[in-house]
Amino acid sequence: RGAAEAPGMAKNTYMRWRLPLVCLLWEVAMIVLFGVFVRFGPEADAHWEEEKKEMNVTSDIENDFYFRYPSFQDVHVMIFVGFGFLMMFLKRYGFGAVGFNFLLAAFGIQWALLMQGWFHSFKTGKILIGVENLINADFCVGSVCVAFGAILGKTSPVQLLVMTLFQVTLFAVNEYILLNLLHVKDAGGSMTIHTFGAYFGLTVTRILYRPNLEQSKDKQGSVYHSDLFAMVGTLYLWMYWPSFNSAISEHGDAQHRAAINTYCSLAACVLTTMAFSSLLQKKGKLDMVHIQNATLAGGVAVGTSAEMMLTPYGSLIVGFICGIVSTVGYVYLTPVLESRLHIQDTCGIHNLHGMPGLIGGIVGAITAAVATEDVYGKEGFIKAFDFTGSYKTRTPSVQGGFQAAGIVVSLVMAFAGGALVGGILKLPIWGDPADETCFEDDIYWEVPEDEESDVYHMHSPGDKPASP
Amino acid sequence: RGAAEAPGMAKNTYMRWRLPLVCLLWEVAMIVLFGVFVRFGPEADAHWEEEKKEMNVTSDIENDFYFRYPSFQDVHVMIFVGFGFLMMFLKRYGFGAVGFNFLLAAFGIQWALLMQGWFHSFKTGKILIGVENLINADFCVGSVCVAFGAILGKTSPVQLLVMTLFQVTLFAVNEYILLNLLHVKDAGGSMTIHTFGAYFGLTVTRILYRPNLEQSKDKQGSVYHSDLFAMVGTLYLWMYWPSFNSAISEHGDAQHRAAINTYCSLAACVLTTMAFSSLLQKKGKLDMVHIQNATLAGGVAVGTSAEMMLTPYGSLIVGFICGIVSTVGYVYLTPVLESRLHIQDTCGIHNLHGMPGLIGGIVGAITAAVATEDVYGKEGFIKAFDFTGSYKTRTPSVQGGFQAAGIVVSLVMAFAGGALVGGILKLPIWGDPADETCFEDDIYWEVPEDEESDVYHMHSPGDKPASP
Amino acid sequence: RGAAEAPGMAKNTYMRWRLPLVCLLWEVAMIVLFGVFVRFGPEADAHWEEEKKEMNVTSDIENDFYFRYPSFQDVHVMIFVGFGFLMMFLKRYGFGAVGFNFLLAAFGIQWALLMQGWFHSFKTGKILIGVENLINADFCVGSVCVAFGAILGKTSPVQLLVMTLFQVTLFAVNEYILLNLLHVKDAGGSMTIHTFGAYFGLTVTRILYRPNLEQSKDKQGSVYHSDLFAMVGTLYLWMYWPSFNSAISEHGDAQHRAAINTYCSLAACVLTTMAFSSLLQKKGKLDMVHIQNATLAGGVAVGTSAEMMLTPYGSLIVGFICGIVSTVGYVYLTPVLESRLHIQDTCGIHNLHGMPGLIGGIVGAITAAVATEDVYGKEGFIKAFDFTGSYKTRTPSVQGGFQAAGIVVSLVMAFAGGALVGGILKLPIWGDPADETCFEDDIYWEVPEDEESDVYHMHSPGDKPASP
Repeated sequence: RGAAEAPGMAKNTYMRWRLPLVCLLWEVAMIVLFGVFVRFGPEADAHWEEEKKEMNVTSDIENDFYFRYPSFQDVHVMIFVGFGFLMMFLKRYGFGAVGFNFLLAAFGIQWALLMQGWFHSFKTGKILIGVENLINADFCVGSVCVAFGAILGKTSPVQLLVMTLFQVTLFAVNEYILLNLLHVKDAGGSMTIHTFGAYFGLTVTRILYRPNLEQSKDKQGSVYHSDLFAMVGTLYLWMYWPSFNSAISEHGDAQHRAAINTYCSLAACVLTTMAFSSLLQKKGKLDMVHIQNATLAGGVAVGTSAEMMLTPYGSLIVGFICGIVSTVGYVYLTPVLESRLHIQDTCGIHNLHGMPGLIGGIVGAITAAVATEDVYGKEGFIKAFDFTGSYKTRTPSVQGGFQAAGIVVSLVMAFAGGALVGGILKLPIWGDPADETCFEDDIYWEVPEDEESDVYHMHSPGDKPASP
Repeated sequence: RGAAEAPGMAKNTYMRWRLPLVCLLWEVAMIVLFGVFVRFGPEADAHWEEEKKEMNVTSDIENDFYFRYPSFQDVHVMIFVGFGFLMMFLKRYGFGAVGFNFLLAAFGIQWALLMQGWFHSFKTGKILIGVENLINADFCVGSVCVAFGAILGKTSPVQLLVMTLFQVTLFAVNEYILLNLLHVKDAGGSMTIHTFGAYFGLTVTRILYRPNLEQSKDKQGSVYHSDLFAMVGTLYLWMYWPSFNSAISEHGDAQHRAAINTYCSLAACVLTTMAFSSLLQKKGKLDMVHIQNATLAGGVAVGTSAEMMLTPYGSLIVGFICGIVSTVGYVYLTPVLESRLHIQDTCGIHNLHGMPGLIGGIVGAITAAVATEDVYGKEGFIKAFDFTGSYKTRTPSVQGGFQAAGIVVSLVMAFAGGALVGGILKLPIWGDPADETCFEDDIYWEVPEDEESDVYHMHSPGDKPASP
Repeated sequence: RGAAEAPGMAKNTYMRWRLPLVCLLWEVAMIVLFGVFVRFGPEADAHWEEEKKEMNVTSDIENDFYFRYPSFQDVHVMIFVGFGFLMMFLKRYGFGAVGFNFLLAAFGIQWALLMQGWFHSFKTGKILIGVENLINADFCVGSVCVAFGAILGKTSPVQLLVMTLFQVTLFAVNEYILLNLLHVKDAGGSMTIHTFGAYFGLTVTRILYRPNLEQSKDKQGSVYHSDLFAMVGTLYLWMYWPSFNSAISEHGDAQHRAAINTYCSLAACVLTTMAFSSLLQKKGKLDMVHIQNATLAGGVAVGTSAEMMLTPYGSLIVGFICGIVSTVGYVYLTPVLESRLHIQDTCGIHNLHGMPGLIGGIVGAITAAVATEDVYGKEGFIKAFDFTGSYKTRTPSVQGGFQAAGIVVSLVMAFAGGALVGGILKLPIWGDPADETCFEDDIYWEVPEDEESDVYHMHSPGDKPASP
């Protein structure tokens, strides 16, 4: 950030040509690429009527749609309402939080369908999509929403679209390495979504460091109503997380188990979050920042292991620990990250996705390493870890080692990718806001006149009751 | 509106006898009619335990409940939260938006169960209902919610109930003509719900034209928080629209396909809406009105074709176009409709449901007309268009023609019905608000004292920080 | 409440050690008890892969997960968003409403899994859990949320946790008596959840009577936006109630039927609520308190009978009556309960859960008593009331008698339990707020600065348009 950016100098945040150009060109590219590559998968294609007879499928209910669509819709709500509203806590950035999240996610899911499709659903020259692809696209975008949390309020919509383009690409590569090359299990994405997303976002925000950000300090807080809106996001993330962690697990017991483990972990996490929120505050009062965020850490932290035989009490233990780690992180770590490491993390994603994501990867590695045929049953054991084909001879402890390797790969990809993308976003062409106009909707949005004017004040101030 | 309505003269908006009378009498009528006509369908009746054995149904999971209930609940959320909150954008009409929507929808679904039941589920003197009937009743009410958007803030609850009674009736007739007589496909209701609902509502609001409506101009805008509430509605409509368009499609691949097509169309629509919202505004800023509404046009516009082999890229194209058409409509068309045609369209339903609904009808006609056995498979082709019985010999191009006829019929029904109902609503007995009290909850609701008084202002104004 | 509590004297509401201690100790206890007792049920265990072959289950879709998970998620939303937001109507208690509800529910579901598990899912020394247990745990906590409504704003979070511990325990005992000993049907919990929860909560608030509560009268009302947030809760409860009442019904027609009956009852209830809300107010205006609450009474009142052959018109009648009873209760009964019986019922749970719960129990008893093989079919009759084993010879009229006994038992348990727990909560060690700081988030929460300061008032007041 050169001489041109003397403090207080207005930046060019004019979006009129830049944003439409990027949106339209990229959407045209999507149409062309979808036209060339994307077709319906067999269970969504009208030919299924014939195919199901050939495949001896006796009932329409066997269509994958009925196994996964309810979970898909829950995940969909988490991405658009969950993340969008959770980030609404800032007093004057509600439009940006929910609107830009909407924009980047709507673009991201299209690009993710392509990227993940090329890696995982590419058959005879076409990407064949079904409901599982939609879930995976939402998942991929989830990692972008995580990263968005770190740079919330400090970037233009064009920057966010650029970041989405690159992050989705890197996500798909990382996911391919983990799931296909390392043969790692990560159904709820502790590693691929949360660890990768968080450290990617933190690296980006480090590179976009704004030394004079205190100029907009007055806008970084919440107000009463914005905190209530944020709780909408929190609760939908919390309630639907069991669907998130079970959405792409194997049919049957694995989905069932993943939901139960996540339910338990999240419940425990609420208790320890409340405990430490009160404990770490001199007056013993609860802090909405913790309740809005740390209560969710338990869902992140069983993202890898939820579909395994973690057991309900194992889940409670993980949730117990993560509520503490996350809350402590908000109180002690976030300020240090900013002052020492120059990492300005608007939403505290390091506490909600970073550390819990790492814990989730480790818990997954351990849970895999200690798996036995006794606990899973002979067939269940093979099915749970997909120890078939060339992985027929892999042992649990080796699987645990590969799981651990998955964490490392995700971190490396996040740091390297984040550095690259951060560098690109630093170019002075994307229309990011000046330091003093960060966290302010007014830069990119038509904001209606203030509430107080006309309507509310019509009656005032004469008829105010004399308050005690 | 005669001499009695000199500007500024207070109208009689007293609801105390009118509203209770209508609610109670009509609800009693519902009870009587339900008592005479409505019974459980076979899959909801306790006899199913025996019947399923006779019908050789091997598992309870084959009950239609499990195919459709998750989609039903999503549709239900769209009608009550989606429409209710979307219309909350007005600064002082939140109670009316969500409350009157609640009222008319709760009455409408009952009347729709009867009307649609007589046309479609009438067997041996009884209407036999199941989960599909509940979805269809919600759909029918959806068209009333659409029309409500045009007259939002300008009508009394009694007027809304009267409109609901008539519109549900006309909807059922129109639906019967399209689905049964013309044998048209319209699972997501581009024609029956959106085209019909929008042009019906626009005709009604034309007839209820208020030349002096600028007297309440100051209340026609939004405030910051009301825009955030409206985004709750927008997002739930957007997220659950795949469920809407697939809810009553055939079991299996058709439901699966409809969800995917809608997902794609909506994603593309967001990008072009954002692009044109910025492009058409001098300062290049995004306008919440567009984001709240035009992003949904893609769902409307694949309402007919989503269950067909539209393909994902076809859906992207439709969404791409509709985001543009709808946003352009808000900027250029809505003001013209009001100034030239005297159509005062509070929510801009012409842009969100009218034009996209027409596009949806056309896209459906084209998609049907170009269908081939090659694309659908021999059996899938017959199943998709139900070319059985007396329609065994109908060709795709003929089907396309009938689809197009369905658009025309829906338009004619909307204009004629809207004119009739508008005339009825113009009678000076329903307690509608005066021009200067439109868009104001205070007329029909007990509104709590203003926020500023007592609590918030306790600390003020001495301790305000000196803002820069 | 002794001499120490002279009016105006500050109480010790310091939570720093009390709340963390309770949260952490109890959560550790949960972990230990889960470790000893809780394991995955057969359909969530990895052994299912083998077991399903032994049990001749042909498809993964037969897993109970797919029958119940969508309903579970709806119920989950009702508990956390439904109740949490419904109670947000108070102008300055939004954090407490949603946050404390979150806390007590998160603890309660864990304790309920254990308590209900010991009574209902205890096999060879272990509690085996599946999705049905999760639903039942949510149900149990639902009764605590009901009771919370009576004491909202007047209790500390520690008191709420203590109440939850006891109420969940008593709920499980009462439920065991009803379902197992009396062999009563109550799938939607008119008796076990609503009657028990309401009268338990009313007894507790009676014992915690605060004669000087008018000191915080100014905070007991709502403001415009808090009423809109509350409508989020109302609508989610209203929309998902069909899932609530059908969630644990038998697979197939019973679930299907329960959803339809509840849908009908709720629709009718909205109409009569609106009618009486207008009728009972001098100016004929609608009151948000009624719309937010009484519209839900129809769901409560078919909680027992929804899965029976109540029939759609029967449901309409029940909803019709309950909308009236509940609204009349808000207008006439609540003030009398406070002035005469010293029952301070913040949310009016007597009108929403108490009376409708009783009606629900009675309607259930009657519906059971008049059941015939003709109406249910021979097999359906046996299945609906589980007239097997030692209940093989029970007749419908006897069943009706036992159903009625279930109401009485629930009431007795509620009064006795409420008296006990109220006495415990009255101990001066739990940190409850003083009379003048009730209904005020500031006591237990870090509350952000007021909205008016800095941001909103930046532009004001010079540029206010001259309002007419």
